[in-house]
Amino acid sequence: MADIIIKNAYVLTMDPDLGDIENGVVVIENGLIKEVGRSTGSTADKIIDARGCVVMPGLINTHCHAGMTLFRGYADDMHLKEWLEDRIWPAEAKLTDDDIHIGSLLACLEMIRSGTTSFADMYIHMDRVAQAVKESGIRAALSYGMIDFGSKEKADAELKEGSRFVSQWNGKADGRITTMYGPHAPNTCSREFLIRVKEQAVKDKIRIHIHVLETEAELNYMKENFGMCSIHFLKDIDFWGTDVLAAHCVWLSDGDIKILAEYGVNISHNPVSNMKLASGIAPVAKLIASGANVCLGTDGCASNNNLDMFEEMKTAALLQKVGTMDPTALPARQVLEMATVNGAKALGIKSGVLKEGHNADMIIVDMRKPHLTPLHDVASQLVYAASGKDVRTTIVAGKVLMEDFMVTCLDEQDILGKAVQTSKNLASRIDS
Amino acid sequence: MADIIIKNAYVLTMDPDLGDIENGVVVIENGLIKEVGRSTGSTADKIIDARGCVVMPGLINTHCHAGMTLFRGYADDMHLKEWLEDRIWPAEAKLTDDDIHIGSLLACLEMIRSGTTSFADMYIHMDRVAQAVKESGIRAALSYGMIDFGSKEKADAELKEGSRFVSQWNGKADGRITTMYGPHAPNTCSREFLIRVKEQAVKDKIRIHIHVLETEAELNYMKENFGMCSIHFLKDIDFWGTDVLAAHCVWLSDGDIKILAEYGVNISHNPVSNMKLASGIAPVAKLIASGANVCLGTDGCASNNNLDMFEEMKTAALLQKVGTMDPTALPARQVLEMATVNGAKALGIKSGVLKEGHNADMIIVDMRKPHLTPLHDVASQLVYAASGKDVRTTIVAGKVLMEDFMVTCLDEQDILGKAVQTSKNLASRIDS
Repeated sequence: MADIIIKNAYVLTMDPDLGDIENGVVVIENGLIKEVGRSTGSTADKIIDARGCVVMPGLINTHCHAGMTLFRGYADDMHLKEWLEDRIWPAEAKLTDDDIHIGSLLACLEMIRSGTTSFADMYIHMDRVAQAVKESGIRAALSYGMIDFGSKEKADAELKEGSRFVSQWNGKADGRITTMYGPHAPNTCSREFLIRVKEQAVKDKIRIHIHVLETEAELNYMKENFGMCSIHFLKDIDFWGTDVLAAHCVWLSDGDIKILAEYGVNISHNPVSNMKLASGIAPVAKLIASGANVCLGTDGCASNNNLDMFEEMKTAALLQKVGTMDPTALPARQVLEMATVNGAKALGIKSGVLKEGHNADMIIVDMRKPHLTPLHDVASQLVYAASGKDVRTTIVAGKVLMEDFMVTCLDEQDILGKAVQTSKNLASRIDS
Repeated sequence: MADIIIKNAYVLTMDPDLGDIENGVVVIENGLIKEVGRSTGSTADKIIDARGCVVMPGLINTHCHAGMTLFRGYADDMHLKEWLEDRIWPAEAKLTDDDIHIGSLLACLEMIRSGTTSFADMYIHMDRVAQAVKESGIRAALSYGMIDFGSKEKADAELKEGSRFVSQWNGKADGRITTMYGPHAPNTCSREFLIRVKEQAVKDKIRIHIHVLETEAELNYMKENFGMCSIHFLKDIDFWGTDVLAAHCVWLSDGDIKILAEYGVNISHNPVSNMKLASGIAPVAKLIASGANVCLGTDGCASNNNLDMFEEMKTAALLQKVGTMDPTALPARQVLEMATVNGAKALGIKSGVLKEGHNADMIIVDMRKPHLTPLHDVASQLVYAASGKDVRTTIVAGKVLMEDFMVTCLDEQDILGKAVQTSKNLASRIDS
C-alpha cells in the first residue's frame, strides 16, 4: 500500500526519457517516488485528484537568506553601498536568534506556499534556520556565512563555527537538511581563508556556497588587489569544482565562462536581485551553451522582495532575451530545467525530477484560472503566465505541507503575528 | 445615504495633497468618490471593512489587445518576424466576432481579478470588445486598429470603420467606454493616412492610440524611407499632442525624448513585452526626468503572457534599474504613479487617484499574507512583493466587480469553459 497517489494530472516529469504525461499518475511511498506513468495498479491511503492541474517537481531556490524576510521592503531603491552599509548591516547586527527563527519560518511558509520545496541558504544564527527547516518540513542546504576580512583570529572563529554547524546539522531532519560551507565572497574573505575552507570542505565531503562577481565593484577590487578577476583567482587556489555553488556570477568574461563550465561549477542566477540592485545581467545563455550547470535563486527578501520562484523563472527568461536582444534565448523549458533539475544537481539532492526512486518533492499547480486560460503550452504557461500563488499543493519527502492552498505543516496565523511583532521590536532596537 | 463606505483601510490616495492615510475611509456615491479622509459622518448601504488591507486607485493598463488572451502561450520564444508572420497574423485572420467577444471577456475577468479597473485597447472586431467591456463593468478606452499599408482604398475603408466605431461607442456604458482612433504604427500606415486620421481625431475631439518605435526595425524602416525616425516624422506632420497615446517608444534618442516631452505625448511603457520579444529597453527614467507623461501597459497576452499590472510595475522598476545601472532609478512611488495617475491622464479619465469627485475606481489589496509580511513600506510592498492575486476587491464606477476574491460581475466558470472551447475551435480552423 503506497502513501499517496496523485491521479488525473498533467505530469511534467522534467525527465528527458519520461517526458510529459498528459493524463498521468504519481505514486508516493516512504518519502520517495514509487511510480510515474499513465496508470498504476497500486492503492494508497490518500488519493489526490489533480484534474485540471499540473504536477511537477518542486522548485529549488539555490540562493536565499531566509532570515532576511524580516527586511522585506525595509530598504529599497538605494545604491548597493548605502543599502548594505547604512541599512542592512546595522539591522543585521541587531538580529537575535529568535528573530532569525521567526524570519526563517516566515520564509519557509512563503516558499511552501509558492511551490519551492528545497532551498540553499547562507546566513547567520544558522541553528535557528535549521530549526525552522526541521519544523516546517521543507528541504534545505544550509551554510553559515563566513567572513574573515583578512583577520587570522576571525578566520579561526568563523571556520570553527562553520564546521560546528556542518557537523551538528548535516543529514538531520530525516535527511532533509544538508549543509554547506559558506565563505561569503572572494572580496570579503582572504585568500588564505578560502584555501582553508576548501581543504576543510573536501576533507568533510561537504559542498561550498559562495557569492561570486555579483558586482563590478568586486571585479575591480579583485583586479586591483590580485591582478585577476575572482574566477581566475579561485581557479588559482584550486577552489573550483562540482562541489561549488557560486551565486550571481554577473561579471564574467568569455574566458571566465569557459573556466566555470570546465570545472562543472554550479551557478545560481538571481535575476530579480541583480536587476533591483542594478548589479548587471549575468550571461546565462552563454553559460548554458558552454555546458555550465545554471540554476536559479531569489536571493534574500531585502533585494527581491519575495521568494516566488515562478516570478524568478519569468524574469530570468525575460532578462536574458532583452539582454542578448534575442527572443529565443532561454526558452520556457530551459528555465524550468534551471529551477528544477539543475537546482537539484547544484545541491546534490535526488530531487528536481519526477522519476522512480527520487525524493517525493513535488507541487500541484492549478491551471483552471482566468490568467492560465486557454492552455496552449504547459511549459510556457508555467513560466510566462503563472505565479507561485497558483500552487495548490506542496509535497516534500512525501509529506503534504500544503493541500488545496491550506498550509498544513505550520501555524500560518501564529507565524504572521510573530513576524509582525518581531519586525516591530527589531525596528525599535535598530533606532535606539 | 452613500452607496459604499470602505473603512479601517490604509488609503494610498496617490493624491499629493492627501498623501497616505494610515487608518482611513473612502465614501462612494453615484459612481464617484464622495469623501476620502480619516473618518466620515456619512452612512451607507454597504460597509466594507478593509482592516489589514490597502485601498488604492485601480490600476490603468494603457496598452492592451484584450482579444489576444486567446493566444496566451500560443507562440513563445520566437523571433518577432516569425512570431508575427508565421503565428500571430495567420491566427488573427481566422478570428471571428464571437472569438473576440470571449477573448475580451476573459481579459476583462483577468484584469478585474488582478486589480485593473481601466484599460486602453487597440484591436479588431472592436464592437465585441466594447460589448465585453459593457457586460463586465470595467472601464476602457477602445480603438479599432487601422492599417492601410499605403493603399488609398484600404485607407478609406479603415478610417470609415474607425469613425463608425468611435461614433457608435464613445461615452457608452454609462460613460465607462471612451474611444480613440487607432492608426497602428508609422511603419504600417502611410504618411497621408496618418495625416487624415489626425485631422479626423481633432475634428471629433477624440484621442489617438498608436504604436511607436517598438523595434529597431521600425527605426531603420523610417530612416530608410523618410530619412528620419518616427518621432521626427510624426512631428513633421503635426501628429503629436497631449491627445496622443504612443505605445512602446523603445528606440528614442535624447532629441526624441525632448520632442515627446515638449508636446505632452502620453507614453505607454510595456516592459514585459519589450523584454519577451527582445525589443529593447525604453528610456523611461529619462522620459520622466524630461517631464513626459509615462504610463504602463501589459500589451497583449501573446507577448506577456498575462495582464497582471502588479507584475508590470515590478518589471518596469527592475528593468529601468538594470538598464541604467542605477538602483535608485524608477522608485516604487514613481511606478505606482505610472500605473494610476499617469494612466488616467493618458486616457483622459477622472480616475487614478482617490479624491473627492473622481470616479470610484479602486481596489482593495489584502496585505495579510506571508509574502507581504512584515510591512515596512506600503509602496515598496505593492510594487516589489505583491501580485495581482493579492487584490481582494475591485470597484469600478462605484460598482463592486469582485468582492473578497469572488467575481460578482461575470460568470467566471462559464467564460473559462467558453474560452477553452473557443481556443480549441480556433486552433482547428488555423490548422485546416
